[in-house]
Amino acid sequence: MTASLQLNPYAIQLCTIGRWIAQKNWLPATGGNLSIRASEHSCLLTGQKDNHEFSPQDLRNVNWADGDLRCSGAPAAETALHVAFYQLFPQCKAVLHSHSLSSTVFSRLIRADGYPVSGYEMQKGIAGCSDADEALQLVILDNAPEVTQLAAQLRQRAGELHSAVLVRGHGLYVWGDTLEQAKRHLESWEFLIACELERLKIAGGV
Amino acid sequence: MTASLQLNPYAIQLCTIGRWIAQKNWLPATGGNLSIRASEHSCLLTGQKDNHEFSPQDLRNVNWADGDLRCSGAPAAETALHVAFYQLFPQCKAVLHSHSLSSTVFSRLIRADGYPVSGYEMQKGIAGCSDADEALQLVILDNAPEVTQLAAQLRQRAGELHSAVLVRGHGLYVWGDTLEQAKRHLESWEFLIACELERLKIAGGV
Amino acid sequence: MTASLQLNPYAIQLCTIGRWIAQKNWLPATGGNLSIRASEHSCLLTGQKDNHEFSPQDLRNVNWADGDLRCSGAPAAETALHVAFYQLFPQCKAVLHSHSLSSTVFSRLIRADGYPVSGYEMQKGIAGCSDADEALQLVILDNAPEVTQLAAQLRQRAGELHSAVLVRGHGLYVWGDTLEQAKRHLESWEFLIACELERLKIAGGV
Amino acid sequence: MTASLQLNPYAIQLCTIGRWIAQKNWLPATGGNLSIRASEHSCLLTGQKDNHEFSPQDLRNVNWADGDLRCSGAPAAETALHVAFYQLFPQCKAVLHSHSLSSTVFSRLIRADGYPVSGYEMQKGIAGCSDADEALQLVILDNAPEVTQLAAQLRQRAGELHSAVLVRGHGLYVWGDTLEQAKRHLESWEFLIACELERLKIAGGV
Repeated sequence: MTASLQLNPYAIQLCTIGRWIAQKNWLPATGGNLSIRASEHSCLLTGQKDNHEFSPQDLRNVNWADGDLRCSGAPAAETALHVAFYQLFPQCKAVLHSHSLSSTVFSRLIRADGYPVSGYEMQKGIAGCSDADEALQLVILDNAPEVTQLAAQLRQRAGELHSAVLVRGHGLYVWGDTLEQAKRHLESWEFLIACELERLKIAGGV
Repeated sequence: MTASLQLNPYAIQLCTIGRWIAQKNWLPATGGNLSIRASEHSCLLTGQKDNHEFSPQDLRNVNWADGDLRCSGAPAAETALHVAFYQLFPQCKAVLHSHSLSSTVFSRLIRADGYPVSGYEMQKGIAGCSDADEALQLVILDNAPEVTQLAAQLRQRAGELHSAVLVRGHGLYVWGDTLEQAKRHLESWEFLIACELERLKIAGGV
Repeated sequence: MTASLQLNPYAIQLCTIGRWIAQKNWLPATGGNLSIRASEHSCLLTGQKDNHEFSPQDLRNVNWADGDLRCSGAPAAETALHVAFYQLFPQCKAVLHSHSLSSTVFSRLIRADGYPVSGYEMQKGIAGCSDADEALQLVILDNAPEVTQLAAQLRQRAGELHSAVLVRGHGLYVWGDTLEQAKRHLESWEFLIACELERLKIAGGV
Repeated sequence: MTASLQLNPYAIQLCTIGRWIAQKNWLPATGGNLSIRASEHSCLLTGQKDNHEFSPQDLRNVNWADGDLRCSGAPAAETALHVAFYQLFPQCKAVLHSHSLSSTVFSRLIRADGYPVSGYEMQKGIAGCSDADEALQLVILDNAPEVTQLAAQLRQRAGELHSAVLVRGHGLYVWGDTLEQAKRHLESWEFLIACELERLKIAGGV
């Protein structure tokens, strides 16, 4: 399998974007993981061992064709959450989970189960948003010891999401119809969250 | 056209400076765009698709010779604003629009339509400013859904500008008599804005 | 000795990780130093002269086989503290001392002799911690003019440590059963400390 | 002269360190400049045109042998201040003037003509300081329109300096007995200033 993954175009794209995300400091220690859909019922997912350098042969093959979740190699803790996104959103082609300082801190400061962002031109970076004055809701889930509990919360609130969900103390998940769109969603949401965190330092209000 | 742009010295200079600006994190996601005057009534403008890597063949040719605005390829949302700068200031050779975290947050914290900066040696980096004790006014425009509205606001306040204008929730525009001067204006204004943002965190006053 | 160190695999690993740590800005000026166990009673330790570029031939050989501490070349001020970790924890294979801005500032803001961290998924990056809701204690020691005083404080509190100790105004020490684990502990603790520092800017409470 | 400067070891060392300082973002726009003593009454000084890339042929030769100040090429605004350091301190071999965001903001927040730093292990990075508990005084000068006024202020307070002086709204000057020591002083003072700025955000007190 190693040889085929080295030449797999999905695997190569995911690793290229992964190195870019790691350079942003959004994947500290073993935090964060990234996946790309490989077929209707399978995806490639980054491993836990080292997030700073990505190579295709370290990716795992995750398959949920027959209802069960099968993973080549030891699965990352968040495997079931990645799969939940692919199951909930058939058009979803990539799921990027960052563990940035800004999103982690922001998720702890906001105690509500969501946060409305408005007044930023950058909101237009999110698919479906064309008006910077309209509030864009960031859904926030409480972290849970078991990833299956997170996946259940996610399913309940799937209709409220704008391509992203923030998990308290745990980081951000975004997805997209293409890997490029997922990357744009990641960068846009990380920017919006970092802006609000900076603004709150001066304007207060939490 | 692709081949000629690859060898066009304006295009090459703009892309070189564009990569430097992107490295500063001043062009997140698809935020920000950059242009250089190519003739009295035309400029080259960066495209929307990817701001992190610039190559000459991705630039658009924007022409306003006969009053109408014509653009090779899909125009960036802010095309009309770039053109407004070239029309207002005949000596203007480059327009750089950054979308940095500092300038975005600062523009939201200040509710007035301008902000006086004083006491910084860095003010001397702005053409026409030779005294650090004299207040240098940063003009702030409200963001608008249509770029033509922004262009209209800009025309009204053209006489107040010091090589820069901040658009609320949207970022900074600077220009210069040369591309090098525009870059110096960008770096100087971004520094001044970032300093004031830091100062406000401790000194308060907003 | 120079030749043998250049080919020593421990030395090469330590220098590779050292350059990565220096890139993070966690070793400013001559702050911070790093070591790897070479045998039961010896380790290799980085020198004081330049922390930004590491090369195997600049490492010192520190030996405590006969009770006395012997060092090839001028010993770093913190040599005795590194040795104390190896003596206290037989399974310890590497000691990393960073001198980051976040950990230095945080250590000054907290006046108690420890700080409980909780609610962060990143806590799971620390060996022995599997529950993000359980408080993870960061032990804080007062700095001391003599490193032997620090080593004495460390011995008294060895039982309270979670792979790390923060020295007030001086930075962070972490260790691990492998060099890779020590690096993960460093990154995880630096992230947790930086998050708390950011959170305190908005939430207050110090 | 160009050819000889390209091979001049002082020039090469200064440019190497200059690129490292520029990478730290301590020389934004045309802010900051660096010099190295070439003889008892002369130094090499960086030019104003571009601080991000340094090459030996862009350095100016500054000579004060006969009392007058002579400079090859257009002199940087701060030339007389660099010369004042070499005249005041015969052992001084290099003068580094950074224009960092932290030092600029800090100099504006502190209204006194000096600031005592204490409790930081990093203080030991400054020549002559061996006790982290003892207050280390950072002298602060008001900025002045004419650099000769700054040089006069500097001469009056020469006896109070600890290898550094902060100019309000203008940045930091450090020097050293060697270029390496000057670089260590720069990094140590920039770290101490950045720490105090961070600490004040939470602890208040300005």
